[in-house]
Amino acid sequence: MGLISYDEVAKHNNSESCYVIVHGKVYDVTEFLPEHPGGSKIILKYAGKDATEEYDPIHPPGTLEENLPKDKCLGEVDPATMKAEAKKEESQEEKQIARNKDELPPLDLCLNLYDFEVVARKVLKGTAWAYYSSGADDEVTMRENNNAFGRIWFRPRILRDVSNINYSTSLLGCKSTLPIYITATALGKLGHPDGEKNLTIAAGREGIIQMIPTLASCSFEEIVDARVHDQQPQFFQLYVNSNRAITEKLIRRAEERGVKGLFVTVDAPQLGRREKDMRIKFEDVGSRVQNDGKDDVDRSQGAARAISSFIDPSLNWDDLNWLRSVTRMPIVLKGVQTWEDAVKAAELGLSGVVLSNHGGRQLDFARSGIEVLGEVVEALKQRGLFPNPMFQIFVDGGVRRASDVLKAVAMGATACGIGRPFLYAYSAYGPEGVQRAIQLLKAEMEMNMRLIGAPTLKDLEPNMVDVRALSTHVNVVPESNQAQIYERLSTAVGMPNEPANKL
Amino acid sequence: MGLISYDEVAKHNNSESCYVIVHGKVYDVTEFLPEHPGGSKIILKYAGKDATEEYDPIHPPGTLEENLPKDKCLGEVDPATMKAEAKKEESQEEKQIARNKDELPPLDLCLNLYDFEVVARKVLKGTAWAYYSSGADDEVTMRENNNAFGRIWFRPRILRDVSNINYSTSLLGCKSTLPIYITATALGKLGHPDGEKNLTIAAGREGIIQMIPTLASCSFEEIVDARVHDQQPQFFQLYVNSNRAITEKLIRRAEERGVKGLFVTVDAPQLGRREKDMRIKFEDVGSRVQNDGKDDVDRSQGAARAISSFIDPSLNWDDLNWLRSVTRMPIVLKGVQTWEDAVKAAELGLSGVVLSNHGGRQLDFARSGIEVLGEVVEALKQRGLFPNPMFQIFVDGGVRRASDVLKAVAMGATACGIGRPFLYAYSAYGPEGVQRAIQLLKAEMEMNMRLIGAPTLKDLEPNMVDVRALSTHVNVVPESNQAQIYERLSTAVGMPNEPANKL
Amino acid sequence: MGLISYDEVAKHNNSESCYVIVHGKVYDVTEFLPEHPGGSKIILKYAGKDATEEYDPIHPPGTLEENLPKDKCLGEVDPATMKAEAKKEESQEEKQIARNKDELPPLDLCLNLYDFEVVARKVLKGTAWAYYSSGADDEVTMRENNNAFGRIWFRPRILRDVSNINYSTSLLGCKSTLPIYITATALGKLGHPDGEKNLTIAAGREGIIQMIPTLASCSFEEIVDARVHDQQPQFFQLYVNSNRAITEKLIRRAEERGVKGLFVTVDAPQLGRREKDMRIKFEDVGSRVQNDGKDDVDRSQGAARAISSFIDPSLNWDDLNWLRSVTRMPIVLKGVQTWEDAVKAAELGLSGVVLSNHGGRQLDFARSGIEVLGEVVEALKQRGLFPNPMFQIFVDGGVRRASDVLKAVAMGATACGIGRPFLYAYSAYGPEGVQRAIQLLKAEMEMNMRLIGAPTLKDLEPNMVDVRALSTHVNVVPESNQAQIYERLSTAVGMPNEPANKL
Amino acid sequence: MGLISYDEVAKHNNSESCYVIVHGKVYDVTEFLPEHPGGSKIILKYAGKDATEEYDPIHPPGTLEENLPKDKCLGEVDPATMKAEAKKEESQEEKQIARNKDELPPLDLCLNLYDFEVVARKVLKGTAWAYYSSGADDEVTMRENNNAFGRIWFRPRILRDVSNINYSTSLLGCKSTLPIYITATALGKLGHPDGEKNLTIAAGREGIIQMIPTLASCSFEEIVDARVHDQQPQFFQLYVNSNRAITEKLIRRAEERGVKGLFVTVDAPQLGRREKDMRIKFEDVGSRVQNDGKDDVDRSQGAARAISSFIDPSLNWDDLNWLRSVTRMPIVLKGVQTWEDAVKAAELGLSGVVLSNHGGRQLDFARSGIEVLGEVVEALKQRGLFPNPMFQIFVDGGVRRASDVLKAVAMGATACGIGRPFLYAYSAYGPEGVQRAIQLLKAEMEMNMRLIGAPTLKDLEPNMVDVRALSTHVNVVPESNQAQIYERLSTAVGMPNEPANKL
Repeated sequence: MGLISYDEVAKHNNSESCYVIVHGKVYDVTEFLPEHPGGSKIILKYAGKDATEEYDPIHPPGTLEENLPKDKCLGEVDPATMKAEAKKEESQEEKQIARNKDELPPLDLCLNLYDFEVVARKVLKGTAWAYYSSGADDEVTMRENNNAFGRIWFRPRILRDVSNINYSTSLLGCKSTLPIYITATALGKLGHPDGEKNLTIAAGREGIIQMIPTLASCSFEEIVDARVHDQQPQFFQLYVNSNRAITEKLIRRAEERGVKGLFVTVDAPQLGRREKDMRIKFEDVGSRVQNDGKDDVDRSQGAARAISSFIDPSLNWDDLNWLRSVTRMPIVLKGVQTWEDAVKAAELGLSGVVLSNHGGRQLDFARSGIEVLGEVVEALKQRGLFPNPMFQIFVDGGVRRASDVLKAVAMGATACGIGRPFLYAYSAYGPEGVQRAIQLLKAEMEMNMRLIGAPTLKDLEPNMVDVRALSTHVNVVPESNQAQIYERLSTAVGMPNEPANKL
Repeated sequence: MGLISYDEVAKHNNSESCYVIVHGKVYDVTEFLPEHPGGSKIILKYAGKDATEEYDPIHPPGTLEENLPKDKCLGEVDPATMKAEAKKEESQEEKQIARNKDELPPLDLCLNLYDFEVVARKVLKGTAWAYYSSGADDEVTMRENNNAFGRIWFRPRILRDVSNINYSTSLLGCKSTLPIYITATALGKLGHPDGEKNLTIAAGREGIIQMIPTLASCSFEEIVDARVHDQQPQFFQLYVNSNRAITEKLIRRAEERGVKGLFVTVDAPQLGRREKDMRIKFEDVGSRVQNDGKDDVDRSQGAARAISSFIDPSLNWDDLNWLRSVTRMPIVLKGVQTWEDAVKAAELGLSGVVLSNHGGRQLDFARSGIEVLGEVVEALKQRGLFPNPMFQIFVDGGVRRASDVLKAVAMGATACGIGRPFLYAYSAYGPEGVQRAIQLLKAEMEMNMRLIGAPTLKDLEPNMVDVRALSTHVNVVPESNQAQIYERLSTAVGMPNEPANKL
Repeated sequence: MGLISYDEVAKHNNSESCYVIVHGKVYDVTEFLPEHPGGSKIILKYAGKDATEEYDPIHPPGTLEENLPKDKCLGEVDPATMKAEAKKEESQEEKQIARNKDELPPLDLCLNLYDFEVVARKVLKGTAWAYYSSGADDEVTMRENNNAFGRIWFRPRILRDVSNINYSTSLLGCKSTLPIYITATALGKLGHPDGEKNLTIAAGREGIIQMIPTLASCSFEEIVDARVHDQQPQFFQLYVNSNRAITEKLIRRAEERGVKGLFVTVDAPQLGRREKDMRIKFEDVGSRVQNDGKDDVDRSQGAARAISSFIDPSLNWDDLNWLRSVTRMPIVLKGVQTWEDAVKAAELGLSGVVLSNHGGRQLDFARSGIEVLGEVVEALKQRGLFPNPMFQIFVDGGVRRASDVLKAVAMGATACGIGRPFLYAYSAYGPEGVQRAIQLLKAEMEMNMRLIGAPTLKDLEPNMVDVRALSTHVNVVPESNQAQIYERLSTAVGMPNEPANKL
Repeated sequence: MGLISYDEVAKHNNSESCYVIVHGKVYDVTEFLPEHPGGSKIILKYAGKDATEEYDPIHPPGTLEENLPKDKCLGEVDPATMKAEAKKEESQEEKQIARNKDELPPLDLCLNLYDFEVVARKVLKGTAWAYYSSGADDEVTMRENNNAFGRIWFRPRILRDVSNINYSTSLLGCKSTLPIYITATALGKLGHPDGEKNLTIAAGREGIIQMIPTLASCSFEEIVDARVHDQQPQFFQLYVNSNRAITEKLIRRAEERGVKGLFVTVDAPQLGRREKDMRIKFEDVGSRVQNDGKDDVDRSQGAARAISSFIDPSLNWDDLNWLRSVTRMPIVLKGVQTWEDAVKAAELGLSGVVLSNHGGRQLDFARSGIEVLGEVVEALKQRGLFPNPMFQIFVDGGVRRASDVLKAVAMGATACGIGRPFLYAYSAYGPEGVQRAIQLLKAEMEMNMRLIGAPTLKDLEPNMVDVRALSTHVNVVPESNQAQIYERLSTAVGMPNEPANKL
């Protein structure tokens, strides 16, 4: 199979005949156009061109190979002819991002996990930001996840010897320096060319555990190979494929490579509608063009739905037997949202549950994991199923401070998962950013455990938190006219943000 | 009766002698001026001119015929003389609306029902917007209607086979593809020249049911004739006239044309004061002119009250016997707001109730339909009246997401009515807009039922929602001085909407 | 006593010798300067000049006569010499107010009581606005008064014959067209040269009752003489003077002039600190001058405290016997704030109580009258003291809508007092403004009683309101960093007040 | 030891050899650089220069002597050579502050304690402001401290003789004119060159008690010597040093100088992370320089942590016996946050507790002292430990109004501590500012006690406050899209802060 010249490829630049170059190989995707989950338009944008840069972050390795017949790979492009291509002109957005990267705040200025969000927003492409930061529908649940922690207050104890603080713990039998793990998130290369490997490295260096996502941008092998040392523990997050054989292969591969726990996602029989993501995707393709086309359904679905069509919506409790038959890894259900289902998981002898609403990206008005924790522990206790070292409870969603984690641990959780903040951290600063984030959490953890009067995680007791308001979902009676007419009081001088009220 | 020349009409341009042209006919309205529910000024604005364009949307067909003696119709205007009239100059508002229509966002960019509101606002005249969007008094109830859904949270179940989702249902025995119907709203032509027919077409194409309003801009016949197919079911909303004969005629006509349900409005013995509507009406007539006049009472009442003087405020429970005597259609009370009245309706053997506060347009501080649903189902259950297939419960007010509907269904409702969003949808995009809105609801419905773990509407159980906060009407202690002085934290870089806090 | 020339007066323009002209008379106030409750500076501003315009609104008639020895009135100024005085130059504020008055919105444009506030603010001097609109401390109670009504929601009944609505009632045996009266407020001339007489006229024309304040700008006689007809009922609000003889004289005078009820203020042993008022007063005197003076304590106290030094802080329950001995008018305690005191008043055989916190002008964090109503009716009922036609309960504070009044009546009140809105109404529009305000309340009353299903006030039952949240005083957990970083969702087009969120 | 010339000092201006001048003495700090708790960079900024001005406010007297070997003090600088040093150029910030000081609002314009905050902010350096105003983490607790008082409402009694108001009381046996004391705060010279002595003077003049901080900028002796009269009582706040001998010396010295009470801080085994403080410190050192250095851990810790490394985190209940053995002063635990610990303190026979969360500067989401007061009094009562004149309860955090204090006293507290507002008062106005603040509190106290109907502090009873909502920690369900799209009502004219809504 001889080399193909770039000029030849460039001729096939429309829906009649559409070639694209990915990683140096030339593919004829003409027949695939109508089947593309992301719509045909987005491919046609790169018809006759090299699409590698755009293709990479949103297609896990092997995607093309698995979805195209072999004969559609026409061969390799002649690299000598590639230099003929004019350097792609930088977009306005790319220029702004480049400038922002030059002025990146020093890592030391990031004093908490929130800071990584504002920094990342400056250096991420709009499409990446939309995918990472979006939530379902009105994003009510996404915001609630963080808010819910605000309904839990501490009852700190004094005059306890807190010279030595120890916040290390054990997750599914694996040591962790913190009661925190890196939870699975998709499409890691949208933020950084090394994708999920940034997390692997930081996790290894700081002694915490990474959960490898099914929908990673890096291949599973790459992520495993990036381990800092042989004994570095990793978990694997699993979307169960309608084709069970594929899933079984994934599980066996994970077990072979020493993965220590299998987290089966159960809150995503279909990936959520995230409108922020859909809106930016829409713009990307060109907002005024689509009226002439017929493929308008898929085009604006955003990254989330484009990549998830394989997930099996028929997955149910009966499938757990099969799952247990194909692996000896401990199995944890990720996405449990009621005590009923948590009790069922415990009674079935699973190894644990993650109380989670998928970071607010699936069902809007799903309650936060931390709220569900309250009813789950209560129900397990009533049935003699808590505490139980063989059944661990994890919580994710909205965790931004060590104090959030301490609240969960005091209520009965083993550890909390954190997702987006670590994505933001490496998007801006690579693995060092993630390490900084973890170190900040450690500093907060030490400080707060001292101030609560709990030198170890075991000393965190339920009566150290006041959770009475945790399930109170109120909003406020809409304001009358009065509220908008009413004039605020003035002060002795103008306030920071505005001039003194002139009467 | 010969033709009348336009020049002749133009001479009668004041309160001494006032002619107007409507649909090509010339009317002498001089004596009618003081009786006009909307005030005389608004008519005098068109004295001696063609008023058709302004007349049409706010007067249901037949209004002139019913309110003027026959001899006041002087004949037809000579169309040949009409061309003499200078082309009416476009107002600033009309020009802006025209520009906005040119830049209408593509329909695909509307990703949820809220989007239609912001689009419609750009293309509606101020008077139309004010009429459609206004609520009673401080519009507290109008906003509460949407807020109340925010006090209900899901308890989603996992690992259920949700491959096949079925959200079809049956309303008063009529099939509906969704547990949603198009509720009655008045003056549909304010938004679009085809008025309510837009809804008829979209409802037929998408398989949901339209409730035809008494105060439609289109005639009842037009709306019925617009059915997409013979079997398309429709309901009829009824304001009972002080003159029962008129009402009886309406009911019989509806039954003859195959209407499947009669929804008697019981929350509007008088139409509400909607100040947004009154304010714009006021401006329309000329805000500084009225000081010289004496008819200032009616002039600023807005469209709502101008069209509703016929409604009978004496309507009471005893009238239901008469109602049942004149029709075999199932009768549903629309606007029930307490369990006491819902129980009474059930005990009387009616076919259902709509728990509604008229979209927040009548009594301010009326509770939302979804809140009332809680107490109604409880009271019916206690009396053995729920569930009862012969007595269906509907809810309207504030419904904007499929998740709102799912909350209502889980609590015991059969379906929800949606009004304004569909008005907005066709005002901007015609019937296709309404179809898009319905399709979006279907997509949300499928998604959310999967995520809740309920493949059919019957699988939605009361314990899938947490309604404990539903009746909590709190507001917030007013802030002290401290709150306005207090400076927000700064972050590592400036936040999206403002510069970093400089100390 | 011969006439004094203006030039002679003008020589006494300092603290050594200080003359002022008030209503054409010349007073030597040199010795009075240090005793002036409002501080000496404010007098010195007018030393040697005519101070009538500034003096009038804040000094009830007779103030000078009562506070100065007779010999300090030196005689009358020679009017012929007055024309020598240069026309006082208009201040910037006065010019702006004059312009605003020219552009006064037509009265018809005021659609609710709130509107009068925004209009009045444009035409009132800063000092007047500050005095009328201010509340105690952080003005928390003032705002709470309105908010509290928002925690009460209606349970409207349907299908009742509401053809005829009757909202007339009887207060202490006097007919009133509305369950509303005009409550006492001080310094009425700050808003309009005719002061409280505006209220008398409007009350008479519209058939409601005015409560005459002790601290009126007009004299008691003027207000009584302004009655529209002989039988127009009026009440009298009483501050009890440390000198009981003065108080007795006031009471006897009121009774002689046919006043129908005596409302004894019991929530103001000292008038409150109203900082908005103090701040503007401060500026009026000159904000940078006072560092050299020694009388800085009084100068910035604002109008409220300057006029109230006579009020007796020792007034107590024992004084009620004396009060009853000097009048046969029914006695009502104004400013009751607990059930304990309301029960005491009922047991003593008084004629009623006003549940009030003085419009939020006295104790901050005092509860609203409407909230107190709940506990008062409950306690009275438990003791068999409610209902009792001889003991009526009134509520004031925050009433702006007829629906507020209906809530109070449903809970057990006879009527509500309204103060500020009527001040604002006549400040902008004179008595016609007050009439318009009352007419708006009547229109709202009719509408809302229809919609609630209560054709008369007696039909308003406790179960027509949901008051469960009335005593819930919550505020909101302060927001985390997250809340400020979080980006709002964008929509299909820019929102009314801002551009679409650019990602 | 001869004098050292400034030129000689100036040569040692780098990390190889680093001299600094402090109070005229020359120190060789080269070897100390890596040990400096505030990082080496901040010292190097002054290498070879006079650092007195920056050194003074943040190092309590004796710091250098205690931390450097004696031989590192090289002698005194020759003052004659100092004039050679160029006058340090004023920074932009210093110029702005100087201008602001020229325009300082007259003290009389400060009408409440909040006013001092806005004034102080104008005249404090950014670093001082950051240190004084900052709180822990998201500053949620700091804001909650003030908010919590808003959940307590008064139930005022009427018709009590309130002619004579007496708000004096006794704290640990010492008379105080108010139930308020000045609580300990660190680094007083950041705000004013006389530091804590401002407070001593004002406290003495106004008859209230100052608590002397361990971490004062002034020496203990200076503060004691500043007493206005011999009998002026003072308390001492103690951080217990890991080296108990140092602590014992402090205690004995305090007792010898007549200190009347020992307040042992128990909520700060480690000083909190205050990000506002850290951020400004960071900027001070130079935000972009640090990437090359290796000492990045300490540099951005802010003032708080730099000065507190000596505090013993092992301090526990057993140490109380030792404490009692070294002093006869009454011992009070400062920073108690649960009823369990308050009961323990009472049972051990201590003299009291301060319910406090350290002004929101330590553990975020710690509850406010006023909230804890509720559970503490309840638990003590149940055990027969309340009321108990030998065990007093103090509260601090968020106190800004006399009404806040009255709420605490009614609930069972003896007095409240106030910190920041007094710092702000003297930062702007010296001791007179603090006096003004105290006088304002006295005026508020008199007023409010009259209005509550409690002439003395003993008359303040628990039923005078409604605390039912005190422990309600709610936040609000995040808003849907609707909330941002929804348009506010317009009014008759434009509102104070914005133009009328144009439709």
